[in-house]
Amino acid sequence: MKNYQVVLLKGDGIGPEIVREAVKVLDKTAQKFRFGVTYTDALLGGAAIDQTGVPLPKETVELCNQADAVLLGAVGGPKWETLPGNLRPEAGLLGIRSAMGLFANLRPAKIFAPLRASSPLRGDIIGEDLDILVVRELTGGIYFGERGRREVNGQPAAYDTEQYTVPEIERIARVGFDSARKRGKKLCSVDKANVLEASRLWRETVIRISAEYPDVELSHMYVDNCAMQLVRNPKQFDVIVTNNIFGDILSDEASMISGSIGMLASASLGSGKNGLFEPIHGSAPDIAGQGIANPLATILSVSMLLRYSLEEPQAADAIEAAVAKVLDEGYRTPDIFTEGGKKVDTAQMGDLVAACI
Amino acid sequence: MKNYQVVLLKGDGIGPEIVREAVKVLDKTAQKFRFGVTYTDALLGGAAIDQTGVPLPKETVELCNQADAVLLGAVGGPKWETLPGNLRPEAGLLGIRSAMGLFANLRPAKIFAPLRASSPLRGDIIGEDLDILVVRELTGGIYFGERGRREVNGQPAAYDTEQYTVPEIERIARVGFDSARKRGKKLCSVDKANVLEASRLWRETVIRISAEYPDVELSHMYVDNCAMQLVRNPKQFDVIVTNNIFGDILSDEASMISGSIGMLASASLGSGKNGLFEPIHGSAPDIAGQGIANPLATILSVSMLLRYSLEEPQAADAIEAAVAKVLDEGYRTPDIFTEGGKKVDTAQMGDLVAACI
Ligand SMILES: CC(C)[C@H](C(=O)O)[C@@H](O)C(=O)O
Ligand SMILES: CC(C)[C@H](C(=O)O)[C@@H](O)C(=O)O
Repeated sequence: MKNYQVVLLKGDGIGPEIVREAVKVLDKTAQKFRFGVTYTDALLGGAAIDQTGVPLPKETVELCNQADAVLLGAVGGPKWETLPGNLRPEAGLLGIRSAMGLFANLRPAKIFAPLRASSPLRGDIIGEDLDILVVRELTGGIYFGERGRREVNGQPAAYDTEQYTVPEIERIARVGFDSARKRGKKLCSVDKANVLEASRLWRETVIRISAEYPDVELSHMYVDNCAMQLVRNPKQFDVIVTNNIFGDILSDEASMISGSIGMLASASLGSGKNGLFEPIHGSAPDIAGQGIANPLATILSVSMLLRYSLEEPQAADAIEAAVAKVLDEGYRTPDIFTEGGKKVDTAQMGDLVAACI
Repeated sequence: MKNYQVVLLKGDGIGPEIVREAVKVLDKTAQKFRFGVTYTDALLGGAAIDQTGVPLPKETVELCNQADAVLLGAVGGPKWETLPGNLRPEAGLLGIRSAMGLFANLRPAKIFAPLRASSPLRGDIIGEDLDILVVRELTGGIYFGERGRREVNGQPAAYDTEQYTVPEIERIARVGFDSARKRGKKLCSVDKANVLEASRLWRETVIRISAEYPDVELSHMYVDNCAMQLVRNPKQFDVIVTNNIFGDILSDEASMISGSIGMLASASLGSGKNGLFEPIHGSAPDIAGQGIANPLATILSVSMLLRYSLEEPQAADAIEAAVAKVLDEGYRTPDIFTEGGKKVDTAQMGDLVAACI
């Protein structure tokens, strides 16, 4: 029997409660599909700051790099917001992405049929369903370029550097094309090539790589137009590939359009199989500890973990099916509750999904 | 009788047709409110490239800088898209903003009641009306920072620099606060201070300037969250102030949410009264020359021109009222036409508005 090493980064706020339910579901899935999982807890974000003084202890990096996969709850909260930038929970998140070499962030934005009415878009615009995958470059660009303060014409100034090398663009472009190949075969590369030099290099490189993927239809869009098109006609998109900062903005916009933000998972991948999986929602400190958080995005992150890192596609499918079934049966945590639903809490939702595996 | 000098940059695509109608309306307004307008044509964008080889001839800069105000149609089109970056129509647009020192871009995103149904958002989300003003910094940041190609670790790379000095942030912050003071007294400053150094300086500076505006309620939001909130609950916003690139993205998203993109005007202002006024939509080369373009955004740009540069607020109000009346009466160009409306072409729409002045 295979045994997998999974590191849990429970993090802050609702992190621990939602990871608990995700583990419940993963255990049940392991039992059913006959593999073992060994869990190791490690510290990240505010929890790490409180216990060790830094948001990303060395030990966490080592444990994560030795694991088969990493499951993250959420990091951050008002408690740590006044700390200097490099000591904030976010720095831990950026640090672990970089230390694990996770250059590709996959963020599916899709509508769960029973929750269709909660999309802020008009019904005729979202139609029967919506399924966009945003592939965001995660370890380059303005997030990791040189930055600082300096004097410019005798005035205090601050700067950041957007920078991409050709190999960085090539590898994320390939993730985009490969993902599109497995889905609707349409890739939209988003940049600001009419202004930015890094975007011009991005576009040239994506076009060059496209020769390897004659079966995928490539288009290009400026980021400002993409922000509009996501609202005007999101169904035109299959896979979007873009840089770190544009991906940050556009993937959040795309998730909100789905109206299912408490339901959306994400995968951060590198060149090997190991990856980091997390819900796209935040640590929600306002409801932490009340047992009312929605664990489904974290449970669906486990499904992505099984698919991408552990390569257990049947187990991954089983989790998705279980979540769909529980939603179909009307069970809802408070964040997605509407008239006529059956209201459940965090642990009940975890139990219900586990029972459907 | 006062006489104003207005430069017309008709530009490309539908630019000349829509500027023609805007001039019609401005002439009628001048007659009614007893002032004179002298027009001078100048070249910008593709039209300038075709006639002079560059997108921004020196003469255009001189004429614009001597004017009381500048009215722009739209620039760009597929014809010039393969030219090198600095010779494209967009370079002319960035160049004239910079040459005229137009550091503040005001982009109102509002819903025109009779067009409410064309917002892509659910009716209960947009409610009775929506009126957001995005104040975008326009002559700094990554648009104008150092950029180029270089080698990084032996690999070809490209870079751009996001940079802001304190005085650049101070002056745009003041435009934001002043605008909020005249409206709903709420200013939301948007940045990515959890990652970018220029954003941290931005936030510090905005907070410092806020002491001058105790009557304006200041809040801060990360750009990714703002992209979500514009879709989830746009009514929470009054004035948004942000940097050049975030403003580019968010103002386009905000306009699309209004569903009235063919209707939205913008003003670019500097430290004096002279400004550049233009519709936010593009040059629409696909429908150019057919006489079916919607001239209302350009006509409303004339209203902003009267308000901000010529300081003729009554004339500005008269144009807004005339546009509202024509819409109320059911007249629609094809882009905003719906069942039951009265379809008119570009020139008829101009005539109708002029007749209502
Ligand atoms: C917390 C923040 C640094 C992070 C980012 O910008 O990458 C977050 O917004 C995300 O998208 O995961
Ligand atoms: C054409 C382009 C350079 C321009 C910009 O990015 O500023 C446009 O998108 C705008 O918003 O006016």
